[in-house]
Amino acid sequence: MGDQIGQAVEGTLYYIPYTEFQRIRTVNLPREQRVAIFADMCRLNALYMIARAGSGHIGSCFSSLDIISWLLLEEMCDEDIFFSSKGHDAPAYYSVLIGMGRLEFDLIHKLRKIGGLPGHPDIGTPEIITNTGSLGMGVSKAKGMVFASRLANRPGHVFVMTGDGELQEGQFWESLVSAVNFGLNEITVIVDHNKLQSDTFVKNVSDLGDLEAKFNVFGWCVRRCDGHDIGAFSSALASMRDEKRPQVIIADTVKGKGVSFMEHTSLDSDLAMYRFHSGAPDADSYRLAVQEIRSRLQQRLSEVSHDDLTYETIKREGTLPSPASAQRLIPAYTLALLDQAKKHPNLVALDADLVLDTGLIPFREQFPQRFFECGIAEQDMVSTAGGMALRGLIPVVHSFACFLSARPNEQIYNNATERTKIIYVGSLAGVIPGGPGHSHQAIRDISALAAIPGLTLMEPSCEEEVGMLLDWAVNTNKLSSYLRLVSLPWVLPYALPGGYAPEIGKGVALTEGDDAVIIAYGPILLSVAVQVANRLKLEAGKLVKIINLPWLNRIDEDWLIQEIDDCPLLISLDNHYYEGGQGGRVAEVIAKSNKFKPKFIRFGIEGIPVSGAHHDVLQAHKLSADEIFESMSSLL
Amino acid sequence: MGDQIGQAVEGTLYYIPYTEFQRIRTVNLPREQRVAIFADMCRLNALYMIARAGSGHIGSCFSSLDIISWLLLEEMCDEDIFFSSKGHDAPAYYSVLIGMGRLEFDLIHKLRKIGGLPGHPDIGTPEIITNTGSLGMGVSKAKGMVFASRLANRPGHVFVMTGDGELQEGQFWESLVSAVNFGLNEITVIVDHNKLQSDTFVKNVSDLGDLEAKFNVFGWCVRRCDGHDIGAFSSALASMRDEKRPQVIIADTVKGKGVSFMEHTSLDSDLAMYRFHSGAPDADSYRLAVQEIRSRLQQRLSEVSHDDLTYETIKREGTLPSPASAQRLIPAYTLALLDQAKKHPNLVALDADLVLDTGLIPFREQFPQRFFECGIAEQDMVSTAGGMALRGLIPVVHSFACFLSARPNEQIYNNATERTKIIYVGSLAGVIPGGPGHSHQAIRDISALAAIPGLTLMEPSCEEEVGMLLDWAVNTNKLSSYLRLVSLPWVLPYALPGGYAPEIGKGVALTEGDDAVIIAYGPILLSVAVQVANRLKLEAGKLVKIINLPWLNRIDEDWLIQEIDDCPLLISLDNHYYEGGQGGRVAEVIAKSNKFKPKFIRFGIEGIPVSGAHHDVLQAHKLSADEIFESMSSLL
Repeated sequence: MGDQIGQAVEGTLYYIPYTEFQRIRTVNLPREQRVAIFADMCRLNALYMIARAGSGHIGSCFSSLDIISWLLLEEMCDEDIFFSSKGHDAPAYYSVLIGMGRLEFDLIHKLRKIGGLPGHPDIGTPEIITNTGSLGMGVSKAKGMVFASRLANRPGHVFVMTGDGELQEGQFWESLVSAVNFGLNEITVIVDHNKLQSDTFVKNVSDLGDLEAKFNVFGWCVRRCDGHDIGAFSSALASMRDEKRPQVIIADTVKGKGVSFMEHTSLDSDLAMYRFHSGAPDADSYRLAVQEIRSRLQQRLSEVSHDDLTYETIKREGTLPSPASAQRLIPAYTLALLDQAKKHPNLVALDADLVLDTGLIPFREQFPQRFFECGIAEQDMVSTAGGMALRGLIPVVHSFACFLSARPNEQIYNNATERTKIIYVGSLAGVIPGGPGHSHQAIRDISALAAIPGLTLMEPSCEEEVGMLLDWAVNTNKLSSYLRLVSLPWVLPYALPGGYAPEIGKGVALTEGDDAVIIAYGPILLSVAVQVANRLKLEAGKLVKIINLPWLNRIDEDWLIQEIDDCPLLISLDNHYYEGGQGGRVAEVIAKSNKFKPKFIRFGIEGIPVSGAHHDVLQAHKLSADEIFESMSSLL
Repeated sequence: MGDQIGQAVEGTLYYIPYTEFQRIRTVNLPREQRVAIFADMCRLNALYMIARAGSGHIGSCFSSLDIISWLLLEEMCDEDIFFSSKGHDAPAYYSVLIGMGRLEFDLIHKLRKIGGLPGHPDIGTPEIITNTGSLGMGVSKAKGMVFASRLANRPGHVFVMTGDGELQEGQFWESLVSAVNFGLNEITVIVDHNKLQSDTFVKNVSDLGDLEAKFNVFGWCVRRCDGHDIGAFSSALASMRDEKRPQVIIADTVKGKGVSFMEHTSLDSDLAMYRFHSGAPDADSYRLAVQEIRSRLQQRLSEVSHDDLTYETIKREGTLPSPASAQRLIPAYTLALLDQAKKHPNLVALDADLVLDTGLIPFREQFPQRFFECGIAEQDMVSTAGGMALRGLIPVVHSFACFLSARPNEQIYNNATERTKIIYVGSLAGVIPGGPGHSHQAIRDISALAAIPGLTLMEPSCEEEVGMLLDWAVNTNKLSSYLRLVSLPWVLPYALPGGYAPEIGKGVALTEGDDAVIIAYGPILLSVAVQVANRLKLEAGKLVKIINLPWLNRIDEDWLIQEIDDCPLLISLDNHYYEGGQGGRVAEVIAKSNKFKPKFIRFGIEGIPVSGAHHDVLQAHKLSADEIFESMSSLL
């Protein structure tokens, strides 16, 4: 699930052109052997896509490629459907489709770019039939497709690839039940059982137990095989062809298969962190990986007396790493949490398999007894926190904002009705990074959580404010809080004024001015606001007051009225849907006040968020400095 | 889960006073025998509470009472904890606590009353340690409690009662995993396996399969026994005392146990509907049930040479049934759905074990191939609908609004990103009935769903508008809709004007006036609005325009500005939290407009909703006609 922000790789990038795929698809070799070569070619192209995009899931792509290649090249009929429930392996699937000519070849250069291929699957892409990236939904979706086919008397089998980590989601176990009760033998699930989830072993996160026995007792027809032995996999499929129950193949695979140092089996110990779950490889790793795949392909082809492949190359300028001056909210959060943990022996941390992305590794090391890894089971995690809070602990609950606000939404409400104190921390908040796509872009969390009784939502603007707001949540707030964290490192063109201390419902001015007021929160849009203000000053001589308002669902009405005073223009910026964003609460205050009324304009997101590079995404959603500057200058 | 609105029973109601419980608790009898008598006494009192409240879950109370009584009277130490995950059986638990003197006796008269005992457990009640009523959370909560105890070196065992229907929730299977991985042998789950969920058999809704085998393969220590054989139950518990794994007892019970005609085993066939899941018994059923329990108690006591019990009685005036003129939105919805289904062969209906409450029985009968019972597995249901919609069906997805908006919140978002058409229908919407308590009072659904891209939220004001809005959702809207339905029958003091047809974002005036405008939606608060307007006319000579605005997250700005024109006072009423309600969108329009600015006052719910009678709940949340009249008349 973790989507770290990697850096594009410098130097030469390699990919295999379509003509070579055409050649290999027709070579006269046993099917299994041909597919294995094809899959390896796709490995190189998937690696290219991820390296060029600067982010992606190599480990999961490589573990699944042999299976996907076999299914698409040799197994499926026209009426059949394949999709991946985990969705991390999208570059693998794209590379197979591209190698088969089912996707325009040029898209290989456009992973995680607007108008290209999103980080997780979206049906806007040809050949993608369902949106995934939110885990555990695959079998449910497949059932719906089968029900539809049955009603229409359409033939067709549905192959669903799942991860193994995602089997921790409760929905998966819900979905197994009715598939059996309805006798949906049109479904075959393939578990890409690569033993790792995010950055470490499934068994260390939340052991799945005896998976074969579990599927069996849920009534499924079960096979197990080596997921890189194409012959074994195809035999397993064949052996279930006349089965009347839904079927599952547990395919034992290797995460990162095909590049020795990326294979999880090369890890020194079960406790080591796996480095190739998400992000992009550094330049050296990329180079070595390409060498290894190329030599193997050369050898395989030479063994069967075929010419080696030709490769195309592209010169890639590495983008600069985030400057040292960029603020990093997650590490700041780590320190703040450790600080609170030292003061409060009853503070505990819960995680849903994102220990790296949520900054919890130091906490786990320093307070192993107070750290609870819950696996990808957010509902269970949140209710567990509820039980802890009832019995005197201060639970701090972590996941990505997109998941934490939605998957356990009812559980957070249930906890809130108990009037306990729980701190929810949602990272990867906001519309960027847009690379991972809409399943991961958390721009609906304020809306989804704001009405939960007693729950205060906050977003810090900088490293310093992270600690202040966490301190408020732990030491001042009597009830529960939600801390919304932007994960991107960002260079901030502003600083909090000296002596600032957060006060509920009240913001703080970062600049002064009488011509307009901009209210915003968080590093991304406050930085945009400063850019806009600078241009307005320079180009129009207008002075803008920028207010950082970290309280997302609480506004002190008197404070706001006083702050905006007789200002003629008020702007609100939401790194969130327009609907339900902070700007809606600003509107409430203005609508209620009978003192005066500025011109009020809101900027926020509408529609489904696009997947792409940071600036492109902001621009596509009219949240770039240019867009806002144009709008404001036309009004001033 | 179903909470039908029953009617209080006329005539004499019987209950057993505390002194009799004191006497029985000390009689010299084998423990099992004494507990069985005590449990039967609690049956009578639980029945009293439900009959007096006019609503409750008799079947589930009666199936669990022997177990709860044994646990509380004989099994648990002071440090131990018991709670029921299903929560339906709250009157059973209350009656045991009352019989033990652990709850004030007077509360027996106050089930589902403000200041009394809520329909589902709330920690505001003494001895209630966690809030339940939202299903499947119990084991997760218990785990959190155990983790807290371990950190504090506190002893104590946690007994969690679950239903069998609720085992369909995915969270339950999530929670089983880590209980084993963490070796939480302090937890004992007791499955009240009464074989029925809501109104029919679990096996017909979504068969659980081999439950013992499932628990075994998930690593739990499993026992199975007759849940009404107290000796067998206590032996099962004893046999697991030194167990190092978490434990579960599958207790085979009878729904409605203790009153012959309420026992599910008296049903003619597996397909019959069980009548005593929720609601209250009619006068005859009540009388017969009391007779049966009383005779048995008399016989049991006489067999052991003890005096019969004395009973206290209370004369209860039956409340009038809802008048024939009351509008019933659920039956109107049933007809509207059948109508659309006849026109659209690709329209299918999905249900999560609330077929009666959501009005789907006629659909199931007329279109058996197009009806999909998904069990209490809302996430699976919603994603199944997603798969159906991708393959050409129009799925209509049903549950109570409280569950549908929250449990599958991420799944609804995922579907929305696929730009398909799905219709979500949430019944039991709004703050009343308040009897079931906060787990069932859906006043957060607009907030939780409004930002989902492309999802249009609507609430009809009357039977006629139900059909109109469903028609809009099926035939006009290209994307997805959420239809919010009040389930209470309600006499409406207004009617839609002739020729009205819903138009997105636009409301319709039900009355005319220049002194103030009230904007509201749905039968409850539009009726309140009419009462307020009538009083303002009569007592203050003021004329109020009432606008029915059925669009909950869409407002046509030009229309609204024109409608409120130069009106000096604008009121918005939300049968929802203030936060995220329709009034917030009205505020947006006013804040944005630079034309004019009326005085604008919103009424909506704040805090945790109270459990009580209809009018009391409205009054407690300042949504009664009196409150709104006072406020408006002070401003006019």
